[in-house]
Amino acid sequence: MLYEYRLETPKEGFIDITDEVRDACRQSGVFDGMLTVYCPHTTAGVTINENTDPDVKNDLLLALNKTYPDRAEFRHSEGNSAAHLKASVIGSSVTVMIDDGELVLGKWQAVYFTEFDGPRSRRFTVKVIGNRG
Amino acid sequence: MLYEYRLETPKEGFIDITDEVRDACRQSGVFDGMLTVYCPHTTAGVTINENTDPDVKNDLLLALNKTYPDRAEFRHSEGNSAAHLKASVIGSSVTVMIDDGELVLGKWQAVYFTEFDGPRSRRFTVKVIGNRG
Amino acid sequence: MLYEYRLETPKEGFIDITDEVRDACRQSGVFDGMLTVYCPHTTAGVTINENTDPDVKNDLLLALNKTYPDRAEFRHSEGNSAAHLKASVIGSSVTVMIDDGELVLGKWQAVYFTEFDGPRSRRFTVKVIGNRG
Repeated sequence: MLYEYRLETPKEGFIDITDEVRDACRQSGVFDGMLTVYCPHTTAGVTINENTDPDVKNDLLLALNKTYPDRAEFRHSEGNSAAHLKASVIGSSVTVMIDDGELVLGKWQAVYFTEFDGPRSRRFTVKVIGNRG
Repeated sequence: MLYEYRLETPKEGFIDITDEVRDACRQSGVFDGMLTVYCPHTTAGVTINENTDPDVKNDLLLALNKTYPDRAEFRHSEGNSAAHLKASVIGSSVTVMIDDGELVLGKWQAVYFTEFDGPRSRRFTVKVIGNRG
Repeated sequence: MLYEYRLETPKEGFIDITDEVRDACRQSGVFDGMLTVYCPHTTAGVTINENTDPDVKNDLLLALNKTYPDRAEFRHSEGNSAAHLKASVIGSSVTVMIDDGELVLGKWQAVYFTEFDGPRSRRFTVKVIGNRG
């Protein structure tokens, strides 16, 4: 069971996609298993972090931009090597467990699509594996 | 098969949880498959690294703290944005393969729970997928 | 289904292993599922990034080396703590979905083995899970 979702992103930022991931979980009917959220782009990623205070995602973006700046030595002609690097540091996928038909997220966790080189039309896929209830 | 383990963490550090992960593997009876270790917290993570010289984990923590310092610009009221960032950089889960009923870890690999904002009562879950022998 | 591949690495760099991963997918005969590529070493990793302009991988390596330098405070006697850290930041595994018997990679994505402490004889494993067509 493979589900695809589309989104329009801002220039950069963390976009909460937990509702879409939960939707894929429910559509699949999997009761006991796990799912993987996958980003098919090379200047964006997916991660899991705090779901409540929006300042957290702003702080994460600010610090990633300071830690991984554009550099004069970069040679990639598109000029977005820093975005490629942030994508690899954050990662292209996350895995979440499913128990009793529900995502097993911690109380403060949300799933984020992380855009580092937008605005763009993006997509992500969710693969669900396991036993149906 | 979903297993949960609890631990009390120090202020920060890499805690070796390989024994617990191996325990989950054996309890599951899975002979051929894989497992995912998942951290349900947003200021801690899980990673795989060197199992022998304890200086390695100390060096990793030292360098992570230098690379991802607290910043005056951070606005998150809890004051632990650097810990949130280290959690996303290290990641919320690792996957390990199972062959012949055993974890397929490299000779020098251990699985670590990484605390960035303790001390706290923490937990992690292990999901095992595959065929029983 | 567990497949192992060997490679000889340079001092450091991103080595494209997409062909080997695709080979494992095809050998498995899995039509609908997913696979995990796993690095059993602690100073190397695996990641997914741009498949076209070779300058991207050079830029990524350059920036990782600037972000995670060797540090005078490091105590690990082998002197390769920076390589251990880059391994944990990049990660020990990636997951790729399989649909219709093919890897579901984005148009610009390749799978890379990332060497941070070579040259060495290295290996990686690919575990394929799912239904055969």
